[in-house]
Amino acid sequence: MASHIVAGRQVRRRRGAPRITALGGGHGLSASLSALRRLTGELTAVVTVADDGGSSGRLRAELGVLPPGDLRKALAALCGDDEWGRTWSEVIQHRFQSDGDLHGHAVGNLLIVALWEKLGDPVEALAYVGRLLGAHGRVLPMSSVPLDIEAVVRGLDPAYPDRRDTVRGQAEVAVTRGEVESVRLLPQDPPAVPEAVAAVREADWVVLGPGSWFTSVLPHLMVPDLRAALVQTRARKVLALNLVGQPGETEGFSPQRHLEVLGAHAPELSVDFVLAEETTVADPEALRSAAKRLGAELVLDNVAAEDGSPRHDPELLAAAYDRIFRTHGRIAPWR
Amino acid sequence: MASHIVAGRQVRRRRGAPRITALGGGHGLSASLSALRRLTGELTAVVTVADDGGSSGRLRAELGVLPPGDLRKALAALCGDDEWGRTWSEVIQHRFQSDGDLHGHAVGNLLIVALWEKLGDPVEALAYVGRLLGAHGRVLPMSSVPLDIEAVVRGLDPAYPDRRDTVRGQAEVAVTRGEVESVRLLPQDPPAVPEAVAAVREADWVVLGPGSWFTSVLPHLMVPDLRAALVQTRARKVLALNLVGQPGETEGFSPQRHLEVLGAHAPELSVDFVLAEETTVADPEALRSAAKRLGAELVLDNVAAEDGSPRHDPELLAAAYDRIFRTHGRIAPWR
Repeated sequence: MASHIVAGRQVRRRRGAPRITALGGGHGLSASLSALRRLTGELTAVVTVADDGGSSGRLRAELGVLPPGDLRKALAALCGDDEWGRTWSEVIQHRFQSDGDLHGHAVGNLLIVALWEKLGDPVEALAYVGRLLGAHGRVLPMSSVPLDIEAVVRGLDPAYPDRRDTVRGQAEVAVTRGEVESVRLLPQDPPAVPEAVAAVREADWVVLGPGSWFTSVLPHLMVPDLRAALVQTRARKVLALNLVGQPGETEGFSPQRHLEVLGAHAPELSVDFVLAEETTVADPEALRSAAKRLGAELVLDNVAAEDGSPRHDPELLAAAYDRIFRTHGRIAPWR
Repeated sequence: MASHIVAGRQVRRRRGAPRITALGGGHGLSASLSALRRLTGELTAVVTVADDGGSSGRLRAELGVLPPGDLRKALAALCGDDEWGRTWSEVIQHRFQSDGDLHGHAVGNLLIVALWEKLGDPVEALAYVGRLLGAHGRVLPMSSVPLDIEAVVRGLDPAYPDRRDTVRGQAEVAVTRGEVESVRLLPQDPPAVPEAVAAVREADWVVLGPGSWFTSVLPHLMVPDLRAALVQTRARKVLALNLVGQPGETEGFSPQRHLEVLGAHAPELSVDFVLAEETTVADPEALRSAAKRLGAELVLDNVAAEDGSPRHDPELLAAAYDRIFRTHGRIAPWR
């Protein structure tokens, strides 16, 4: 596999270290990766490729490439601990500020796109950036073709609260004023990246979420080979819930509503654990019941940043994942 | 020095390996570096920063930075020999092709500019790119401020063949239809980069040229501290001539005319050797006399690419430099 050829510093499998595959996109996935990198040297991120806003959206439109932004964020979250890794992580996250053409472009997006154009292979190109950063894990796109998200939204126009409209584009869906009922990908049934499918099938643990529910978490279930792998894998599955509903796509959604939406989009998918921030769950019993309908045990823990912002704290999230993995893993406790 | 901190793989000084500092810009400097990297592990490139055309010109105008293009080309010429170094060298040389805003931008230019913005220090930022490439040497800008070139040109308008006009901007000067008589930098007397001055003073050999004479070679003589270092250094100096006059700025210039122009711009500068391609010199005695007026011995050798294009062949150029260094060096022959 190309990524192994260039990886070079591929971490040797530690005895008992779990193979973890995390699926998502955006800031939620970055939070999960910042936590999981503390727990294993065998970490793979599988990232949505449906963004059509900002720098990524402009690059898609101008160059016909995959949207690189969520991949870049995942790579930055996995950067090496030394000055070299941290500096390059900051550089790829750097955005140009000007009155001109480059304004708003993230440097890492431009670099990833250049490697795609030069190498042809999206997976190999990302492995090059990963090695540059000394990344603690691999980052893979969920599909090798750029995708779009289309949502059915109710009440877009307050004058017609029950009318259903179609909203197209991740950027639009993420901030819609209506209530999202369901999403689908365009093109439908896109091809999965084989390395991503293998990473799900061969994992000890699969972590889904946190993140924008309709635009970063659910899309993974709409790639047929990835969905089949998620259903069939022998890995245990953790679903990490968001701390709050997201203004726009899940504003006002309760935690249990998030689970119901997931169940509606993938009825055959079972989950082993649902992880939620204890202090944000108003009705633990309702959430426990919703988790049970997915086959999951509810784990309430403290994972929120202590400054009160709606962000996960990487150390607390790592500790929560670690408790789940240690207590419930098929393999012996590690570390 | 910052570059040493990040260099990491800094080549240990080999016994007898010469410290070589090469000054120039553009393709000429790249040719020289491609040759000199074969001869030493102690190589420093000092690069003009007056380009105002193409991707570099747009970046200067949009972001107010040094023009990165010639620095990028020099780094690419020094890239590591392995797949990693070659791939990154190709990536930084890659130019986006589109109907949009990014068209024509070289990826390495964007990367260098991002590092400048992030790190603040142009020398340290270039050392980061050098380490990324596994570069066989250092690349330094001659000045830390963006410069412009202004030329006095005769006969710009064929109707007035003796009229002198002022042409501003490297891109304009390089293709002028008139005959360039002299050039100056704006701002005048710009500050030199201290590391570049030190590299000239501490070198065993200094190589000037080949390259666009008025816009890549002579500008180094107009940075006061760099000029003083070139005059005062104990290093021996080699002036490498172009294979042909450049359409525009030196069209129709004989080799001896190149030397006369150099002498006119820096009368106090002496040179030890003038290296020219034997087959392009129509009047060896005239060139020998012109070299002698600079204090230099003329060395005629075969350095041109064998396909007949007006390019230096890196191996032949390396062999020619090597013969000069071995025969005339103060230090014992090496390798």
